[in-house]
Amino acid sequence: MTAHGTRVRPGRTVETAVLALDGAVRVYKQDRVAVEEPLELRLSDGTNVRTLGVTMRTPGNDFELAAGFAFGESIVRARDRLTGITYCLDANLDPSQQYNVVTIECEPGEFDRSAGRFERHFTMNSSCGVCGRAQLESLYDLGVRPLDDGLRIAETLLYALPERMHEEQRIFASTGGLHAAALFDESGACAIVREDIGRHNALDKVVGWGLLNGRLPFARSLLLVSGRASYEILQKAVTARIPVVCSVSAPSSLAIDVAREFNVTLVGFLRGNRANVYAGDERIAALAS
Amino acid sequence: MTAHGTRVRPGRTVETAVLALDGAVRVYKQDRVAVEEPLELRLSDGTNVRTLGVTMRTPGNDFELAAGFAFGESIVRARDRLTGITYCLDANLDPSQQYNVVTIECEPGEFDRSAGRFERHFTMNSSCGVCGRAQLESLYDLGVRPLDDGLRIAETLLYALPERMHEEQRIFASTGGLHAAALFDESGACAIVREDIGRHNALDKVVGWGLLNGRLPFARSLLLVSGRASYEILQKAVTARIPVVCSVSAPSSLAIDVAREFNVTLVGFLRGNRANVYAGDERIAALAS
Repeated sequence: MTAHGTRVRPGRTVETAVLALDGAVRVYKQDRVAVEEPLELRLSDGTNVRTLGVTMRTPGNDFELAAGFAFGESIVRARDRLTGITYCLDANLDPSQQYNVVTIECEPGEFDRSAGRFERHFTMNSSCGVCGRAQLESLYDLGVRPLDDGLRIAETLLYALPERMHEEQRIFASTGGLHAAALFDESGACAIVREDIGRHNALDKVVGWGLLNGRLPFARSLLLVSGRASYEILQKAVTARIPVVCSVSAPSSLAIDVAREFNVTLVGFLRGNRANVYAGDERIAALAS
Repeated sequence: MTAHGTRVRPGRTVETAVLALDGAVRVYKQDRVAVEEPLELRLSDGTNVRTLGVTMRTPGNDFELAAGFAFGESIVRARDRLTGITYCLDANLDPSQQYNVVTIECEPGEFDRSAGRFERHFTMNSSCGVCGRAQLESLYDLGVRPLDDGLRIAETLLYALPERMHEEQRIFASTGGLHAAALFDESGACAIVREDIGRHNALDKVVGWGLLNGRLPFARSLLLVSGRASYEILQKAVTARIPVVCSVSAPSSLAIDVAREFNVTLVGFLRGNRANVYAGDERIAALAS
C-alpha cells in the first residue's frame, strides 16, 4: 500500500457518497465524479531535466496530454524530435505519484530552445510530491485550517440561489459567455456577483472585493459558481473562509476532498429544487415539507 | 490613438459581426461577445517589482481580481498589508496596455515571503507588451502562419457534430463533469474524442494523439469543444492547423481575433440546427434547402 493510501494508478472517475436533495426528500446514495489530480510535466534531453509546469487534469491519456501540451507550446514541433515519454521512475516518489509526473524526452536542440520560456522551478517536497494529498497539505502550509462554525441552512434557501444570481447578471444575458461567482449571506441575500471569462477570476474578484472592503473572512456566507467546482474553486473558497460552496454543475474528486478535509459544505448540480451535497451535509437542515 | 488601434480602456463586451445560421437560413448580424484580454499581475514593495503571473480575463474590477488573487495565494493576508493597487504607469507601455498591468503594492515582509513561489519572469517585449495584439504576435513568433486551404463544409454537417461527439462520450454520461474535445474529418466522421476536467487538457490530448500517431498537421478537419471558445483553445487549434473550430457556447473577443488573423473558421453556439459563425464563413457553403 502507498504512503497516502491512494490507489496506485488513478482512474478517470471515482465513486463517492452524496446526499441527494429533491424538494424536501433526502436520500443518501453513491455517485460517480470525475477524478482531478495534478500532473507535473517535465522535459528532458537525457542529461538535464526541466519542469514545464503542473496542470490539474483527469488521469488517462497522460502521454497524449504531455505531447499535445509540448506541441502547442512549440517545444516539440514534430514526432521525430520526441525520443520518448515516460511516467516518473524517481524511486523517491510514492508509486501513486509516479503516475502524476510525466517526462517528455527530446533532442538537446528542442530542450535548449525552450530554456527561456520555462524557467519556473516548483518547490517540490520530496516526501510529499505531486498528488491530491499533497495539494491538501499545501493548503495547511499556507495556514488554512478547517472551518468551525455553527451555520445551518435550509435546503429551500439553496434552491433560490441560482435565480438570484441570474437576476444580478446583466452581462450574462447579453453575451452568454461569462462565468459568474456570487456571494450570499445566510439569509440568502446576494452580497456581490462578479463575472469573467475565467471561472477562477470571477471568484478572485469576489474575494478581492471582500479584501478591499474589509469583509474578509466571509464567515456565515454561501458561494455560488456558474460552472463546475474544481480544486482551485475550493482552495480559494476555503482560504476566504466560505462555509458553503454551491455549483450548478459537477464537482471534481479533489474539490470534494478539500471540502471534506476543511469542513466546507459542497453542493453540486444545484438546479430547480434539486441538489447533491458532497460534503458537510450537517449544515443543510432538514425541514418539514 | 494607440499604436495598435485598440480602445484605451477595454470594456467588458464588444460588438462583432456574425453570420447566424438557422437551418438553411443565413443572416448577417451584430452580436455582443465577452472581452478577453491578458492581465499581468505585479507585486511591489515600493523598491522591487516581481511578476506574479499573467491571466486571461474579462476587463472590469481588475483591482478586485488582483487583490483576490493575492489573497488566495496567501501573498497578501490582510487589508492592512496592502498599501495600494495601481494600473501600470510605465511610460514605455502603450496606453491600452497600461490597463492590462496591475501592480499590487505591499509591505516588504509580504514581498519577501512570496519570493520562493513566484520567481517566474515572463519575457516581455517592450514594444509589444501585454495586450491582445501582442498575444497574436506571439503566435507569429512561434512560427504559426495563417491557414490556406480550400476546405468547404456544408452547414448540415456542422449541425450533426454535437450529437456525434456525445455518442463517443461514455464518461460524460456517467459524471456530467468532464469537458470534451472531438476531432472530425471533412465528411463529419469522428476521428477521436478526449475528455478532461480541464477544457484545454481535452484539446491537448487530441493534439497529442495526433502527434504520437503521425496525424499532424490536422488539415481538412473540424474541432468541437464542449465549453466556450477562448484564446487558448484557438491558439492550440491553429498551431495544430485545424481549419474549423466549433463550440457549443460563446467565443471570446480574443478567440475571434485569433480566428480572423489566422484564417480559422470559428463557429459558436452550435446547438440543434443553429450556429453563429464568427470568422472564416467562406468555408461554410450555402446549400439549397
